[in-house]
Amino acid sequence: MKDLEGLFKHFLRDIYYAENKVLTTLPKMAKEADAKELRDAFKEHHRETKGQINNLKKVFKTLDLKPRGVTCEAINGILKEGKEIMKECEDPDARDAGMIAAAQAVEHYEITRYGTMIAWARQLKMREAAKLLKENLNQEYAADKKLSKLAESSLNRQAV
Amino acid sequence: MKDLEGLFKHFLRDIYYAENKVLTTLPKMAKEADAKELRDAFKEHHRETKGQINNLKKVFKTLDLKPRGVTCEAINGILKEGKEIMKECEDPDARDAGMIAAAQAVEHYEITRYGTMIAWARQLKMREAAKLLKENLNQEYAADKKLSKLAESSLNRQAV
Repeated sequence: MKDLEGLFKHFLRDIYYAENKVLTTLPKMAKEADAKELRDAFKEHHRETKGQINNLKKVFKTLDLKPRGVTCEAINGILKEGKEIMKECEDPDARDAGMIAAAQAVEHYEITRYGTMIAWARQLKMREAAKLLKENLNQEYAADKKLSKLAESSLNRQAV
Repeated sequence: MKDLEGLFKHFLRDIYYAENKVLTTLPKMAKEADAKELRDAFKEHHRETKGQINNLKKVFKTLDLKPRGVTCEAINGILKEGKEIMKECEDPDARDAGMIAAAQAVEHYEITRYGTMIAWARQLKMREAAKLLKENLNQEYAADKKLSKLAESSLNRQAV
Protein backbone atom coordinates (compact mmCIF):
# COMPACT_ATOMS: atom_id res chain seq x y z
CA MET A 1 0.00 0.00 0.00
CA LYS A 2 2.91 2.38 -0.53
CA ASP A 3 1.24 4.51 -3.23
CA LEU A 4 -2.16 5.09 -4.86
CA GLU A 5 -1.83 2.07 -7.17
CA GLY A 6 -0.93 -0.10 -4.18
CA LEU A 7 -3.94 1.24 -2.26
CA PHE A 8 -6.19 0.53 -5.25
CA LYS A 9 -4.99 -3.09 -5.45
CA HIS A 10 -5.53 -3.56 -1.72
CA PHE A 11 -9.06 -2.12 -1.93
CA LEU A 12 -9.80 -4.36 -4.93
CA ARG A 13 -8.80 -7.45 -2.95
CA ASP A 14 -10.79 -6.21 0.06
CA ILE A 15 -14.01 -5.74 -1.94
CA TYR A 16 -13.44 -9.02 -3.80
CA TYR A 17 -13.33 -10.80 -0.44
CA ALA A 18 -16.42 -8.87 0.72
CA GLU A 19 -18.52 -9.65 -2.38
CA ASN A 20 -17.63 -13.35 -2.19
CA LYS A 21 -18.61 -13.41 1.48
CA VAL A 22 -21.89 -11.68 0.65
CA LEU A 23 -22.51 -14.24 -2.13
CA THR A 24 -22.40 -17.14 0.34
CA THR A 25 -24.47 -15.28 2.96
CA LEU A 26 -27.38 -14.04 0.83
CA PRO A 27 -29.01 -17.49 0.30
CA LYS A 28 -29.07 -17.97 4.11
CA MET A 29 -30.70 -14.56 4.54
CA ALA A 30 -33.23 -15.35 1.81
CA LYS A 31 -34.11 -18.56 3.67
CA GLU A 32 -34.62 -16.74 6.97
CA ALA A 33 -36.60 -13.76 5.65
CA ASP A 34 -40.28 -13.80 6.55
CA ALA A 35 -41.70 -11.42 3.92
CA LYS A 36 -41.81 -12.80 0.38
CA GLU A 37 -40.62 -9.50 -1.14
CA LEU A 38 -37.55 -9.55 1.11
CA ARG A 39 -36.76 -13.17 0.19
CA ASP A 40 -37.04 -12.20 -3.47
CA ALA A 41 -34.85 -9.13 -2.97
CA PHE A 42 -32.11 -11.21 -1.36
CA LYS A 43 -32.34 -13.78 -4.16
CA GLU A 44 -32.13 -11.07 -6.82
CA HIS A 45 -29.16 -9.43 -5.14
CA HIS A 46 -27.51 -12.86 -5.02
CA ARG A 47 -27.74 -13.00 -8.81
CA GLU A 48 -26.41 -9.44 -9.09
CA THR A 49 -23.51 -10.23 -6.77
CA LYS A 50 -22.38 -13.02 -9.12
CA GLY A 51 -22.16 -10.46 -11.93
CA GLN A 52 -20.32 -8.02 -9.69
CA ILE A 53 -17.72 -10.65 -8.81
CA ASN A 54 -17.29 -11.26 -12.52
CA ASN A 55 -16.70 -7.53 -13.03
CA LEU A 56 -14.09 -7.55 -10.26
CA LYS A 57 -12.33 -10.47 -11.95
CA LYS A 58 -12.18 -8.36 -15.12
CA VAL A 59 -10.66 -5.48 -13.13
CA PHE A 60 -7.98 -7.86 -11.79
CA LYS A 61 -7.33 -8.86 -15.42
CA THR A 62 -6.81 -5.25 -16.55
CA LEU A 63 -4.05 -5.10 -13.90
CA ASP A 64 -2.58 -8.47 -14.94
CA LEU A 65 -3.36 -9.83 -11.50
CA LYS A 66 -4.94 -13.09 -10.39
CA PRO A 67 -8.20 -12.53 -8.48
CA ARG A 68 -7.40 -12.83 -4.77
CA GLY A 69 -9.13 -11.54 -1.66
CA VAL A 70 -7.79 -10.12 1.59
CA THR A 71 -9.84 -10.50 4.77
CA CYS A 72 -12.27 -7.63 5.16
CA GLU A 73 -13.05 -7.42 8.87
CA ALA A 74 -15.69 -4.75 8.36
CA ILE A 75 -17.85 -7.09 6.25
CA ASN A 76 -17.15 -10.02 8.58
CA GLY A 77 -18.32 -7.88 11.52
CA ILE A 78 -21.50 -6.73 9.78
CA LEU A 79 -22.41 -10.25 8.62
CA LYS A 80 -21.69 -11.74 12.04
CA GLU A 81 -24.08 -9.26 13.62
CA GLY A 82 -26.68 -10.09 10.95
CA LYS A 83 -26.34 -13.76 11.89
CA GLU A 84 -26.92 -12.94 15.56
CA ILE A 85 -30.06 -10.99 14.64
CA MET A 86 -31.40 -13.95 12.62
CA LYS A 87 -30.76 -16.23 15.60
CA GLU A 88 -31.97 -14.06 18.46
CA CYS A 89 -34.85 -12.01 17.07
CA GLU A 90 -38.15 -13.82 17.69
CA ASP A 91 -40.63 -11.43 16.10
CA PRO A 92 -40.65 -12.17 12.33
CA ASP A 93 -41.26 -8.55 11.21
CA ALA A 94 -38.58 -7.24 13.58
CA ARG A 95 -36.22 -9.96 12.35
CA ASP A 96 -36.85 -8.85 8.78
CA ALA A 97 -36.17 -5.23 9.82
CA GLY A 98 -32.92 -6.32 11.48
CA MET A 99 -31.81 -8.30 8.43
CA ILE A 100 -32.56 -5.33 6.19
CA ALA A 101 -30.42 -3.14 8.48
CA ALA A 102 -27.54 -5.62 8.20
CA ALA A 103 -27.91 -5.77 4.42
CA GLN A 104 -27.96 -1.97 4.20
CA ALA A 105 -24.77 -1.73 6.26
CA VAL A 106 -23.18 -4.07 3.69
CA GLU A 107 -24.49 -1.93 0.81
CA HIS A 108 -23.15 1.25 2.39
CA TYR A 109 -19.73 -0.29 2.89
CA GLU A 110 -19.68 -1.33 -0.75
CA ILE A 111 -20.99 2.05 -1.92
CA THR A 112 -18.24 3.98 -0.15
CA ARG A 113 -15.56 1.55 -1.37
CA TYR A 114 -16.69 1.56 -5.01
CA GLY A 115 -16.96 5.37 -4.89
CA THR A 116 -13.38 5.68 -3.66
CA MET A 117 -12.04 3.09 -6.10
CA ILE A 118 -13.70 4.75 -9.09
CA ALA A 119 -12.07 8.09 -8.20
CA TRP A 120 -8.70 6.37 -7.81
CA ALA A 121 -9.10 4.37 -11.05
CA ARG A 122 -9.80 7.60 -12.96
CA GLN A 123 -6.77 9.22 -11.37
CA LEU A 124 -4.66 6.21 -12.40
CA LYS A 125 -6.09 6.38 -15.97
CA MET A 126 -7.67 2.94 -15.55
CA ARG A 127 -10.72 3.67 -17.70
CA GLU A 128 -11.97 0.09 -18.12
CA ALA A 129 -11.67 -0.59 -14.39
CA ALA A 130 -13.56 2.63 -13.59
CA LYS A 131 -16.36 1.60 -15.96
CA LEU A 132 -16.71 -1.88 -14.43
CA LEU A 133 -16.68 -0.55 -10.88
CA LYS A 134 -19.30 2.04 -11.80
CA GLU A 135 -21.62 -0.78 -12.93
CA ASN A 136 -21.26 -2.41 -9.52
CA LEU A 137 -21.77 0.90 -7.72
CA ASN A 138 -25.02 1.60 -9.59
CA GLN A 139 -26.37 -1.82 -8.61
CA GLU A 140 -25.48 -1.26 -4.95
CA TYR A 141 -27.26 2.11 -4.96
CA ALA A 142 -30.37 0.47 -6.44
CA ALA A 143 -30.21 -2.41 -3.95
CA ASP A 144 -29.91 0.01 -1.01
CA LYS A 145 -32.90 2.01 -2.26
CA LYS A 146 -35.00 -1.13 -2.61
CA LEU A 147 -34.05 -2.22 0.92
CA SER A 148 -35.14 1.17 2.29
CA LYS A 149 -38.58 0.62 0.73
CA LEU A 150 -38.79 -2.91 2.14
CA ALA A 151 -37.80 -1.59 5.58
CA GLU A 152 -40.73 0.80 5.41
CA SER A 153 -43.20 -2.00 4.56
CA SER A 154 -41.77 -4.19 7.31
CA LEU A 155 -42.23 -1.36 9.85
CA ASN A 156 -45.74 -0.68 8.56
CA ARG A 157 -46.66 -4.31 9.15
CA GLN A 158 -45.42 -4.07 12.71
CA ALA A 159 -47.58 -0.98 13.22
CA VAL A 160 -50.73 -2.89 12.24
CA MET B 1 -32.58 -8.57 20.41
CA LYS B 2 -35.89 -10.43 20.51
CA ASP B 3 -38.04 -7.57 19.19
CA LEU B 4 -37.72 -4.12 17.59
CA GLU B 5 -37.07 -2.37 20.92
CA GLY B 6 -34.37 -4.91 21.72
CA LEU B 7 -32.81 -4.36 18.30
CA PHE B 8 -32.89 -0.60 18.83
CA LYS B 9 -31.09 -0.91 22.17
CA HIS B 10 -28.46 -3.18 20.62
CA PHE B 11 -27.88 -0.75 17.74
CA LEU B 12 -27.65 2.15 20.22
CA ARG B 13 -24.91 0.35 22.14
CA ASP B 14 -23.15 -0.57 18.89
CA ILE B 15 -23.07 3.03 17.63
CA TYR B 16 -22.09 4.32 21.10
CA TYR B 17 -19.07 2.02 21.00
CA ALA B 18 -18.31 3.09 17.43
CA GLU B 19 -18.48 6.85 18.15
CA ASN B 20 -16.25 6.48 21.21
CA LYS B 21 -13.73 4.51 19.17
CA VAL B 22 -13.82 7.20 16.47
CA LEU B 23 -13.30 9.87 19.14
CA THR B 24 -10.00 8.33 20.24
CA THR B 25 -8.85 7.67 16.66
CA LEU B 26 -9.49 11.08 15.06
CA PRO B 27 -6.65 12.93 16.87
CA LYS B 28 -4.19 10.29 15.59
CA MET B 29 -5.52 10.74 12.07
CA ALA B 30 -5.27 14.53 12.38
CA LYS B 31 -1.63 14.11 13.42
CA GLU B 32 -0.82 11.90 10.43
CA ALA B 33 -2.65 13.91 7.76
CA ASP B 34 -0.39 15.79 5.39
CA ALA B 35 -2.80 18.41 3.99
CA LYS B 36 -3.74 21.17 6.43
CA GLU B 37 -7.41 21.13 5.34
CA LEU B 38 -7.59 17.41 6.12
CA ARG B 39 -5.99 17.89 9.53
CA ASP B 40 -8.54 20.64 10.23
CA ALA B 41 -11.41 18.44 9.01
CA PHE B 42 -10.41 15.61 11.34
CA LYS B 43 -10.08 18.04 14.25
CA GLU B 44 -13.49 19.54 13.53
CA HIS B 45 -15.11 16.12 13.29
CA HIS B 46 -13.47 15.25 16.61
CA ARG B 47 -15.35 18.15 18.20
CA GLU B 48 -18.58 17.09 16.49
CA THR B 49 -18.14 13.50 17.66
CA LYS B 50 -18.04 14.70 21.28
CA GLY B 51 -21.45 16.32 20.76
CA GLN B 52 -22.76 13.18 19.07
CA ILE B 53 -21.71 11.03 22.01
CA ASN B 54 -23.55 13.46 24.25
CA ASN B 55 -26.66 13.05 22.11
CA LEU B 56 -26.37 9.27 22.39
CA LYS B 57 -26.14 9.59 26.18
CA LYS B 58 -29.39 11.53 26.08
CA VAL B 59 -30.99 8.74 24.01
CA PHE B 60 -29.90 6.20 26.63
CA LYS B 61 -31.52 8.47 29.25
CA THR B 62 -34.87 8.56 27.41
CA LEU B 63 -34.82 4.74 27.71
CA ASP B 64 -33.78 4.82 31.38
CA LEU B 65 -30.58 3.01 30.48
CA LYS B 66 -26.98 3.64 31.49
CA PRO B 67 -24.75 4.45 28.47
CA ARG B 68 -22.91 1.26 27.58
CA GLY B 69 -21.23 0.08 24.39
CA VAL B 70 -21.05 -3.33 22.72
CA THR B 71 -18.07 -4.17 20.52
CA CYS B 72 -18.67 -3.08 16.95
CA GLU B 73 -16.41 -5.23 14.79
CA ALA B 74 -17.28 -3.33 11.63
CA ILE B 75 -15.80 -0.10 13.03
CA ASN B 76 -12.84 -1.93 14.53
CA GLY B 77 -12.13 -3.47 11.12
CA ILE B 78 -12.37 -0.16 9.26
CA LEU B 79 -10.16 1.67 11.78
CA LYS B 80 -7.60 -1.14 11.80
CA GLU B 81 -7.31 -0.89 8.04
CA GLY B 82 -6.97 2.90 8.33
CA LYS B 83 -4.09 2.38 10.77
CA GLU B 84 -2.34 0.04 8.31
CA ILE B 85 -2.70 2.65 5.56
CA MET B 86 -1.15 5.33 7.82
CA LYS B 87 1.74 2.98 8.57
CA GLU B 88 2.40 1.54 5.13
CA CYS B 89 1.61 4.29 2.64
CA GLU B 90 4.73 6.30 1.87
CA ASP B 91 3.43 8.91 -0.56
CA PRO B 92 1.85 11.72 1.55
CA ASP B 93 -0.95 12.56 -0.93
CA ALA B 94 -1.82 8.89 -1.41
CA ARG B 95 -1.76 8.42 2.39
CA ASP B 96 -4.19 11.32 2.74
CA ALA B 97 -6.41 9.73 0.07
CA GLY B 98 -6.30 6.41 1.96
CA MET B 99 -7.14 8.06 5.29
CA ILE B 100 -10.06 9.87 3.66
CA ALA B 101 -11.31 6.54 2.31
CA ALA B 102 -11.13 5.02 5.81
CA ALA B 103 -12.94 8.01 7.30
CA GLN B 104 -15.65 7.81 4.62
CA ALA B 105 -16.19 4.11 5.35
CA VAL B 106 -16.74 5.12 8.99
CA GLU B 107 -19.19 7.87 7.95
CA HIS B 108 -21.14 5.47 5.73
CA TYR B 109 -21.43 2.94 8.52
CA GLU B 110 -22.74 5.63 10.83
CA ILE B 111 -25.09 7.02 8.16
CA THR B 112 -26.74 3.65 7.55
CA ARG B 113 -27.01 2.94 11.27
CA TYR B 114 -28.48 6.33 12.19
CA GLY B 115 -30.90 6.03 9.24
CA THR B 116 -32.15 2.66 10.48
CA MET B 117 -32.33 3.77 14.12
CA ILE B 118 -34.34 6.90 13.26
CA ALA B 119 -36.92 4.78 11.38
CA TRP B 120 -37.12 2.36 14.31
CA ALA B 121 -37.35 5.18 16.89
CA ARG B 122 -40.28 6.70 14.99
CA GLN B 123 -41.96 3.31 14.84
CA LEU B 124 -41.47 2.92 18.60
CA LYS B 125 -42.87 6.45 19.20
CA MET B 126 -39.51 7.61 20.64
CA ARG B 127 -39.75 11.16 19.32
CA GLU B 128 -36.94 12.69 21.40
CA ALA B 129 -34.57 9.86 20.47
CA ALA B 130 -35.43 10.25 16.77
CA LYS B 131 -34.70 13.99 16.97
CA LEU B 132 -31.31 13.48 18.64
CA LEU B 133 -30.28 10.77 16.20
CA LYS B 134 -31.32 12.98 13.28
CA GLU B 135 -28.90 15.67 14.51
CA ASN B 136 -26.09 13.12 14.44
CA LEU B 137 -27.11 11.84 11.00
CA ASN B 138 -27.08 15.34 9.50
CA GLN B 139 -23.54 15.92 10.81
CA GLU B 140 -22.35 12.62 9.35
CA TYR B 141 -23.81 13.50 5.96
CA ALA B 142 -22.03 16.88 6.03
CA ALA B 143 -18.75 15.26 7.15
CA ASP B 144 -18.94 12.71 4.33
CA LYS B 145 -19.59 15.44 1.77
CA LYS B 146 -16.62 17.46 3.04
CA LEU B 147 -14.38 14.37 2.84
CA SER B 148 -15.44 13.80 -0.78
CA LYS B 149 -14.29 17.34 -1.61
CA LEU B 150 -10.98 16.83 0.21
CA ALA B 151 -10.47 13.53 -1.64
CA GLU B 152 -10.80 15.43 -4.90
CA SER B 153 -8.17 18.00 -3.88
CA SER B 154 -5.84 15.27 -2.69
CA LEU B 155 -6.16 13.47 -6.05
CA ASN B 156 -5.66 16.73 -7.94
CA ARG B 157 -2.43 17.32 -6.05
CA GLN B 158 -1.23 13.87 -7.06
CA ALA B 159 -2.00 14.68 -10.68
CA VAL B 160 0.26 17.75 -10.59
